[in-house]
Amino acid sequence: MIVVMKPGATQRQIDHVIERIEQLGLRSHVIVGTERTVVAALGEKRDGAKQALETGEAVEKVVPILAPYKMASTEVKQERTCVAARGLKVGGRRLGVIAGPCSVESRDQILELAHFVKEAGASGLRGGAFKPRTSPYSFQGLKEKGLQMLAEARQQTGLAVVTEVMAPEHVPLVARYADVLQVGARNMQNYPLLEAVGESELPVLLKRGPSATMDEFLLAAEYILKTGNTEVMLCERGIRTFEDHTRFTLPLATVPYLHQTTHLPVVVDPSHGTGKASLVAPMAVAAVAAGADGIIVEVHPDPEKALSDGFQALTPAAFRHMMADCRKVAAALGKMM
Amino acid sequence: MIVVMKPGATQRQIDHVIERIEQLGLRSHVIVGTERTVVAALGEKRDGAKQALETGEAVEKVVPILAPYKMASTEVKQERTCVAARGLKVGGRRLGVIAGPCSVESRDQILELAHFVKEAGASGLRGGAFKPRTSPYSFQGLKEKGLQMLAEARQQTGLAVVTEVMAPEHVPLVARYADVLQVGARNMQNYPLLEAVGESELPVLLKRGPSATMDEFLLAAEYILKTGNTEVMLCERGIRTFEDHTRFTLPLATVPYLHQTTHLPVVVDPSHGTGKASLVAPMAVAAVAAGADGIIVEVHPDPEKALSDGFQALTPAAFRHMMADCRKVAAALGKMM
Amino acid sequence: MIVVMKPGATQRQIDHVIERIEQLGLRSHVIVGTERTVVAALGEKRDGAKQALETGEAVEKVVPILAPYKMASTEVKQERTCVAARGLKVGGRRLGVIAGPCSVESRDQILELAHFVKEAGASGLRGGAFKPRTSPYSFQGLKEKGLQMLAEARQQTGLAVVTEVMAPEHVPLVARYADVLQVGARNMQNYPLLEAVGESELPVLLKRGPSATMDEFLLAAEYILKTGNTEVMLCERGIRTFEDHTRFTLPLATVPYLHQTTHLPVVVDPSHGTGKASLVAPMAVAAVAAGADGIIVEVHPDPEKALSDGFQALTPAAFRHMMADCRKVAAALGKMM
Amino acid sequence: MIVVMKPGATQRQIDHVIERIEQLGLRSHVIVGTERTVVAALGEKRDGAKQALETGEAVEKVVPILAPYKMASTEVKQERTCVAARGLKVGGRRLGVIAGPCSVESRDQILELAHFVKEAGASGLRGGAFKPRTSPYSFQGLKEKGLQMLAEARQQTGLAVVTEVMAPEHVPLVARYADVLQVGARNMQNYPLLEAVGESELPVLLKRGPSATMDEFLLAAEYILKTGNTEVMLCERGIRTFEDHTRFTLPLATVPYLHQTTHLPVVVDPSHGTGKASLVAPMAVAAVAAGADGIIVEVHPDPEKALSDGFQALTPAAFRHMMADCRKVAAALGKMM
Repeated sequence: MIVVMKPGATQRQIDHVIERIEQLGLRSHVIVGTERTVVAALGEKRDGAKQALETGEAVEKVVPILAPYKMASTEVKQERTCVAARGLKVGGRRLGVIAGPCSVESRDQILELAHFVKEAGASGLRGGAFKPRTSPYSFQGLKEKGLQMLAEARQQTGLAVVTEVMAPEHVPLVARYADVLQVGARNMQNYPLLEAVGESELPVLLKRGPSATMDEFLLAAEYILKTGNTEVMLCERGIRTFEDHTRFTLPLATVPYLHQTTHLPVVVDPSHGTGKASLVAPMAVAAVAAGADGIIVEVHPDPEKALSDGFQALTPAAFRHMMADCRKVAAALGKMM
Repeated sequence: MIVVMKPGATQRQIDHVIERIEQLGLRSHVIVGTERTVVAALGEKRDGAKQALETGEAVEKVVPILAPYKMASTEVKQERTCVAARGLKVGGRRLGVIAGPCSVESRDQILELAHFVKEAGASGLRGGAFKPRTSPYSFQGLKEKGLQMLAEARQQTGLAVVTEVMAPEHVPLVARYADVLQVGARNMQNYPLLEAVGESELPVLLKRGPSATMDEFLLAAEYILKTGNTEVMLCERGIRTFEDHTRFTLPLATVPYLHQTTHLPVVVDPSHGTGKASLVAPMAVAAVAAGADGIIVEVHPDPEKALSDGFQALTPAAFRHMMADCRKVAAALGKMM
Repeated sequence: MIVVMKPGATQRQIDHVIERIEQLGLRSHVIVGTERTVVAALGEKRDGAKQALETGEAVEKVVPILAPYKMASTEVKQERTCVAARGLKVGGRRLGVIAGPCSVESRDQILELAHFVKEAGASGLRGGAFKPRTSPYSFQGLKEKGLQMLAEARQQTGLAVVTEVMAPEHVPLVARYADVLQVGARNMQNYPLLEAVGESELPVLLKRGPSATMDEFLLAAEYILKTGNTEVMLCERGIRTFEDHTRFTLPLATVPYLHQTTHLPVVVDPSHGTGKASLVAPMAVAAVAAGADGIIVEVHPDPEKALSDGFQALTPAAFRHMMADCRKVAAALGKMM
Repeated sequence: MIVVMKPGATQRQIDHVIERIEQLGLRSHVIVGTERTVVAALGEKRDGAKQALETGEAVEKVVPILAPYKMASTEVKQERTCVAARGLKVGGRRLGVIAGPCSVESRDQILELAHFVKEAGASGLRGGAFKPRTSPYSFQGLKEKGLQMLAEARQQTGLAVVTEVMAPEHVPLVARYADVLQVGARNMQNYPLLEAVGESELPVLLKRGPSATMDEFLLAAEYILKTGNTEVMLCERGIRTFEDHTRFTLPLATVPYLHQTTHLPVVVDPSHGTGKASLVAPMAVAAVAAGADGIIVEVHPDPEKALSDGFQALTPAAFRHMMADCRKVAAALGKMM
């Protein structure tokens, strides 16, 4: 860490910072500049030392040198992580495609869709059985019955089931049916939940919170990795900004940025990332071009009658068309889909 | 709801919208404008009808007329709610002041602070025993031992204990010691938790998520109100914006806005709202001037040695000074503190 | 427009709204709903009527039905606009590539780069002679000397010169040398400048302001279109959000959104849009995949020695590599580059 | 500056950074940490050195130590600046109040309002004659005729005239009538305009751009200060965020933050800062409590008939009420109004 003193800091105040650095088990190194003094703290760990130094008298700011996360970092593990669940592989040369409805609505709906998306090239089946909804008056999911329908769809198609879990106490139940546990954007910093999915030993799809920085996102992943579970996919699903013509703003630069800082694979969700069916396909194709390891997309046989988020679901025909474009772009860049 | 059709929508498409409106149990009313047709759907409820109509062919947008929340609304209940827990009253002519450390760190620390803030005029004692921390490497709280220390502090001072609960399965434990359950900003949309604190029958301090709109905030409150628990305080604690000179941006217009739309009382947290000790007192005074029903502030006997968030904690002397200014402003505006 | 009344609005208040609507030259149409009354105002124009109605007593909100812009809209002109300046064509099947340094620094620099980017496939040459810089202590550009160097580069290569103009009084000077006038992001709402570039009759590259909504962006374009100059390219260059790992957040959904709402062509600037050289190429490729009509990229022979924005400039080698990938993706999607 | 090298940076790469630092006329100082090497560059100036170092191979980031502005900084000038124009004084113990309509609409309107706001306690009269409007179809101001009406109002009341100037070439004209030149939010980074108002030698009210950071805001002020004109008032008028229940988000922490970093006085604009008449008064009172040196507020005799921004204008009665509350809070905190 670098502790920057205010101009005019007294020797007593500088000595105090040095003392604090040493109390924290670090070595100090003073640099006297033209207008200010700076004290380097060597031997940095990733705990609360930064905050402790920040409150010192005449300290202007403390600049950390190390990233706050460790196990997620390419500094610690260089080979890329590839997460696999049945036929779904995310992180290699072949892109993983996860598709399906926002919510599981009925046995017929999910079976029909599963067969359809499988045929169109998906290897994972999405579908919510426990639905976190902004309004308590909205449809909340079919719960265990929905999970059973997903399991049946998997049995018929071989697709990996990707479904959300909302509370630590639901993890054992959902883990009985799912191949991948999804942690939703609203729960990215629900730490008891992160620990519980980590301990499930199932692969995890971790969605970025709509106002999470990259450091916060990777620290959330770190909560899972710390349990010993290294099968984590990071999912960019859009952030909250001032833009009002889309539901969220989808920042695809996340993809190359994460590829440069972490070994974990990156999945993009253009459905939530735009919130408008007419924008989903171009952004899915762009995500592939940006180097995404996978995409997760909402498809519904009749979006107008969907019980949730129909406005952002692709029709089967639109999904097939999107897949064709994605496949062309992937091939052009030496990837498979 | 108002369904706005795209220019050039055909009669068949308009008829389809009308049919959908009627299938949803609403009445339709067509208005043919100069450039577009608009269909009003009368008898609106607050469920998923908006989404269902939005996906219709040639529909440009659907504008809801009603607010999505109900029980939190001044349309439903006009007299203001006053939440009380021991001496702490929030929502009346007297402002509630909740003060204390970020985390409970030791018996001595919390007892000393409790006596101090009581004397300085607080009626609630804050202090985290279960700490949600961005990094898994940071101090995570003293858990039940911390709760016991809070209870002892209450016994000695009569202050109401306000403390965070992070997971539904902790609610019974925390409820045994606390007077008010706090739902943190990261958990504002943790619906199983909202339902669990609702069912505890204790008063709840609900913090706004850093990227939550007012509608989302009030819908989160609605999850609690729906359980029959009406003792909800809304807490503005800052939002995430592009500003980088403060930890969060504290939008005090929240206070009068909420006073105009909901009957629930509003508390402001200038400590998280700024993240800088030097900005806390002016913003606490401004919150009182904006009409806040209460404030919640971090105080620490020695911020430099705090185990969490020391950089935003007031020293006891600074807190006493802040209270003096707040009291003057409250008195000037006809309130008590 | 739809005027939504507050619940409990009196007949007198409703009558007042009707009267105002008629005074504004519109027709009114009252719809009495279960909980509220709504008044439609038919014959909407795009002037200040919305604001006038919004301030009425017991009016909750006013919802416009028409987009606020007109000439930029696909409702008014359906065939797509293709902007051409020498060999640079933006808006057709062939993508336009504009490349060059942030600032013109010397005759050698710009000539060398012009030959290089031409060979690598660019048809436009960017380079700032008048530089708007955040700090008054930064390099401010070579002014007219820089323009002369650009003109010489054009003469040698045939590339179209795209360069920024910062003030209405500079327009005649810059127009003497440039093929395309660029309006920078900081000046997107500098209305005297928009009118001046409009009147120049040169094609204009209009950059989106970092906090502009799509409506504001298109209304800025409308200021230019209103002068009779229809040669406007819209340039997405990133928005300001809470993200701190990139300089701006680059929202590529802008591309398909604008393609659905306006006939004007869309250019993407991945250099400013990310602010990090290592992220530029993946985002350029993604922009092509999202359907952009052109890209504008910063290239510098030795970024470390650039007088401005070196951190986001590609080296010539990196640019050539980026072009290869863009070309493959364009071809895969049936476009040329 | 502190240059942080990537882990694994080679000696050659470190030597290269040292060489670059010395070429820039700075001294270097190497600190070898446990995991990374850091190079301090001493003798920092405020020019482009940071950018030059940032592009070096194996450089992870460059952390500036000094603020980028100089003349605006409390490091350079400690006594607070008080800006005066006729009876209007901003920056001392007495708060400055600037009030009036959004636009000058007619001689009667402005004269009537001027007398009214004078009587209610204002010392400055606001009113736009040149109006920057988002839409080219909106009312654009009365131009010179409006300025003449403002001058007449001044003559009758003694109020200082505060009015916006939109382009460098209008400065001489506007300066002939105005006492204070206002630079609007859209023009905060219009550098030719900043220089032109600086050279006018009139006091300047500089509004914060809706997405400007504090550093950018102070660097814009620096453009004016550099001309030798030190009469600059900084005006917080709200920032653009995801919030949709207000027109902008008004961050009052700006006030104490600027008081700690600059000697320039700070004015708050609660009218634009909220965009809703019902929120203006509480936020004006809160601004006074936060320590603002002045406020600028929109008042209109009949907001419903205002030619611009009526929805955020106070009626005369509401303004008088607001003034009473502000005055009480100012008095409580030892200020005058």
